[in-house]
Amino acid sequence: MKGKEFNYSFKVKDESYLWSEDNEVISFHALSTSSLLEEIHKCTYNILKDLLEKDQVSVVSHSCIDHLSSTPYSFKVFIKLKITDVSYNKVHFQGEAFDEINKIATFELTRNIVSKKILRKNLNQKMESINLSGQISERYT
Amino acid sequence: MKGKEFNYSFKVKDESYLWSEDNEVISFHALSTSSLLEEIHKCTYNILKDLLEKDQVSVVSHSCIDHLSSTPYSFKVFIKLKITDVSYNKVHFQGEAFDEINKIATFELTRNIVSKKILRKNLNQKMESINLSGQISERYT
Repeated sequence: MKGKEFNYSFKVKDESYLWSEDNEVISFHALSTSSLLEEIHKCTYNILKDLLEKDQVSVVSHSCIDHLSSTPYSFKVFIKLKITDVSYNKVHFQGEAFDEINKIATFELTRNIVSKKILRKNLNQKMESINLSGQISERYT
Repeated sequence: MKGKEFNYSFKVKDESYLWSEDNEVISFHALSTSSLLEEIHKCTYNILKDLLEKDQVSVVSHSCIDHLSSTPYSFKVFIKLKITDVSYNKVHFQGEAFDEINKIATFELTRNIVSKKILRKNLNQKMESINLSGQISERYT
């Protein structure tokens, strides 16, 4: 897998992709950094998905982006990335993103391969621990 | 501004916050890394907003996160961050995020202060350059 290259593209096709902290910012009609990252995350998820065992899933443990240039609504974005290292349960990616005019970002990303069962257990334990402390505080206050 | 600390919180209160690359992943009901980053970005945007001139706006130029632990749906998330440096037009932030149980992330972020007019001009130029090349290719092919 190490050194393998992948390409992926998407279109800034609806408002969910737009920079949107307030109404003025929305009026720029520009791709947001977090939406660009969401697409990059999705891309690396799909690359690993078919390679994993049935009980495994990959989660983002590290994600880093330099956002270099703004991309208008309706533009296509091209993501080009490669796997730079695989060690123990970690897969490291590095890549670049371009729109139809120029390079818009460079990024690095690590996904950890984890057991679905353990992930579900951890999430459930967190939920239960909150419910329990809720019951205790109801009982004693 | 340098060294100043800020706190912000939000609730994982609807599906837009959830990890969602496919249906199985949605069933974990866990906060996604990109939604967590979106909230962190929003937080730094709001910190700077009232300090800028009318024609200025801040854009994310660098964003880096280590996502350490999963957060279930309905949990509150607390973001704690400080400005570590201000140089020329760049404001650097560093921080941590916690849910109701433990620390879930550490992050670093840089926002560039840019002129709204220039940002709008750059976006328009990109749009025009695509429209123009569309017209040319229609005419000559």
